[in-house]
Amino acid sequence: NNYFKIAVLPGDGIGPEIISESIKILDVIAEAFQYEFQFNYGLIGAEAIFKTGDPLPEETLKICKESDAVLFGAIGDPAFDNNPEAKVRPEQGLLKLRKELGLFANIRPLKTYASLIEKSPLKKEIIEGADIQIFRELVSGIYFGEKFTDPEGAYAYDVCKYSREDILPIAHMAFQEAQKRNKKLTLIDKANVLDTSRLWRKICQEIASEYPDVQLDYMFVDNAAMQLILNPKQFDVILTENMFGDIISDEASVIGGSIGLLPSASVGEKNALFEPIHGSYPQAKGKGIANPIASILSVAMMLDHLGLQPAANKLRQSVEHAIENKYVTIDLNTKQYYSTSEVGSFIADYI
Amino acid sequence: NNYFKIAVLPGDGIGPEIISESIKILDVIAEAFQYEFQFNYGLIGAEAIFKTGDPLPEETLKICKESDAVLFGAIGDPAFDNNPEAKVRPEQGLLKLRKELGLFANIRPLKTYASLIEKSPLKKEIIEGADIQIFRELVSGIYFGEKFTDPEGAYAYDVCKYSREDILPIAHMAFQEAQKRNKKLTLIDKANVLDTSRLWRKICQEIASEYPDVQLDYMFVDNAAMQLILNPKQFDVILTENMFGDIISDEASVIGGSIGLLPSASVGEKNALFEPIHGSYPQAKGKGIANPIASILSVAMMLDHLGLQPAANKLRQSVEHAIENKYVTIDLNTKQYYSTSEVGSFIADYI
Ligand SMILES: CC(C)[C@H](C(=O)O)[C@@H](O)C(=O)O
Ligand SMILES: CC(C)[C@H](C(=O)O)[C@@H](O)C(=O)O
Repeated sequence: NNYFKIAVLPGDGIGPEIISESIKILDVIAEAFQYEFQFNYGLIGAEAIFKTGDPLPEETLKICKESDAVLFGAIGDPAFDNNPEAKVRPEQGLLKLRKELGLFANIRPLKTYASLIEKSPLKKEIIEGADIQIFRELVSGIYFGEKFTDPEGAYAYDVCKYSREDILPIAHMAFQEAQKRNKKLTLIDKANVLDTSRLWRKICQEIASEYPDVQLDYMFVDNAAMQLILNPKQFDVILTENMFGDIISDEASVIGGSIGLLPSASVGEKNALFEPIHGSYPQAKGKGIANPIASILSVAMMLDHLGLQPAANKLRQSVEHAIENKYVTIDLNTKQYYSTSEVGSFIADYI
Repeated sequence: NNYFKIAVLPGDGIGPEIISESIKILDVIAEAFQYEFQFNYGLIGAEAIFKTGDPLPEETLKICKESDAVLFGAIGDPAFDNNPEAKVRPEQGLLKLRKELGLFANIRPLKTYASLIEKSPLKKEIIEGADIQIFRELVSGIYFGEKFTDPEGAYAYDVCKYSREDILPIAHMAFQEAQKRNKKLTLIDKANVLDTSRLWRKICQEIASEYPDVQLDYMFVDNAAMQLILNPKQFDVILTENMFGDIISDEASVIGGSIGLLPSASVGEKNALFEPIHGSYPQAKGKGIANPIASILSVAMMLDHLGLQPAANKLRQSVEHAIENKYVTIDLNTKQYYSTSEVGSFIADYI
């Protein structure tokens, strides 16, 4: 099969700019490898609210459900962030999309780029050789539990709920990945305080016997937030719930040198979505300074997912080539830098 | 008033070892400054469970309520952590104590010690001069909301709840501290997802007008976890809810060089408790390698709280003297190091 339907959701802020570089790349790849990609664009987020009143229009959801993969840009707009009263919010679009597509596992690979190691706020000896794969549960927990704000504004609550069925699939996935890697799995939780965390621990303990070659460790999230910086090399595969995963994986991005480099895949039984881990970075919108690499590497993860490994590998090489030749945006080199579109074209040309 | 009742709760793991150094220090201070401290010891945590079945015996609570200040060691035992079925847990003792004493604000000062800057995993230019004060809400949120585990183990939940009354006192406290410092307050939340976070934002917005000289910023917790490492100097006073504060403040400990150095104060209307931010470190128990400085600096915070500034300042000087003279435990210098009790005595002698 050489024909693929790709849903493309540029979203907010720098989303459209980075996505257009990813499309540039996919066009070149289609030609070089004789694939055919059909791109179906959809509205989401603040963009969608402004145009339709709905952060996830029905049409967008339909395009995504029918796609072989979703390419997602970014979401979020300060107009909403600074207004605690807003009833409709851009992020609801992404959360609903994750839920509707059943994207239960968000996978974030973290590696250090040799040529960027100096860019990290961490010392070279701390991060050199670090290689972590984070599995974050994505469609349950406090993100999706019942929420309530008293109309008078006297109180509010958010419920964090997990069932056995929410935890099992991603736990198995993480164990399986650990088997393919260094056979070490760390569950990050707060089992000394939360009932939900104890359920995670219990279920991981139960299924651990199916993966006797994997060493399962537990770490409290507060300690983990510290250990990730003190000694990131102690981690191989990390498994964690939705909210802790959100925090821990953004934090861990400092290991790689820049959040502008980090891709992610969100996968479910039927669908998959690929997005940079950075946000909509509204201050940079339209300035041509956004780093397109996180989105481009998300395309590489998408190609892997579609079974197009040769193209995925070639694309990763091209990205490394650009980084090694310092053909990068301002976040990676303030002395000599290129625009979003120049970096995209440089990578595309190398393919 | 020169007479003070101090409740002393050594707790678990290395707790007793570090607390006995703190008492050594207080004895010297009492003599040097003509104060009288009456120490009333109480059981808490795993120790208390083993001896009484209760992680916070009534007697301990009573001692604490009648005290001018509580000196707390550490809590937690792996026997419980690795058993998701345990019905009674050491941490419940500390949580109940915080609640019963109404200790709504956990205050964690973070500074870099010039002579330890090399010890940090972060580069010198990133952390040099960083000076942050964290205000973590301590008696509400998901720690204290309703919790439930289905008897069959099919699901579990934890409720994060905040009321206006939970937020107001600590928010005012943080604004007031910002006024005394660099007039910058950052609220860390997840207002793009959580109703409780939006309530925090709303209340901070409301009271901001009472502190016109303070610049109030908001930051999502995922971004904050990254920014703390990328550029800690951008922060002055941080305000956040219970769970985020737990994670963020342990993470931020890397800025100081070692978690073994960091004290905290937990204060309420009537009572106050002082404890190191590190945990019970069970692997080190009884080995004489635990760093007593975090506990000793918690004593300094306690002396401040009791209005004994001259003694507090002298104690901080003595700690700096020890660090500068490399009279430290193995976590700070693996080449030449001293035992817990040697470091305590060195600091005491200097007073
Ligand atoms: C935009 C926001 C809702 C989202 C999240 O918190 O999941 C983002 O931070 C992420 O990590 O993908
Ligand atoms: C021991 C534990 C319950 C506690 C907490 O999470 O509050 C500790 O981590 C702390 O930060 O004081």
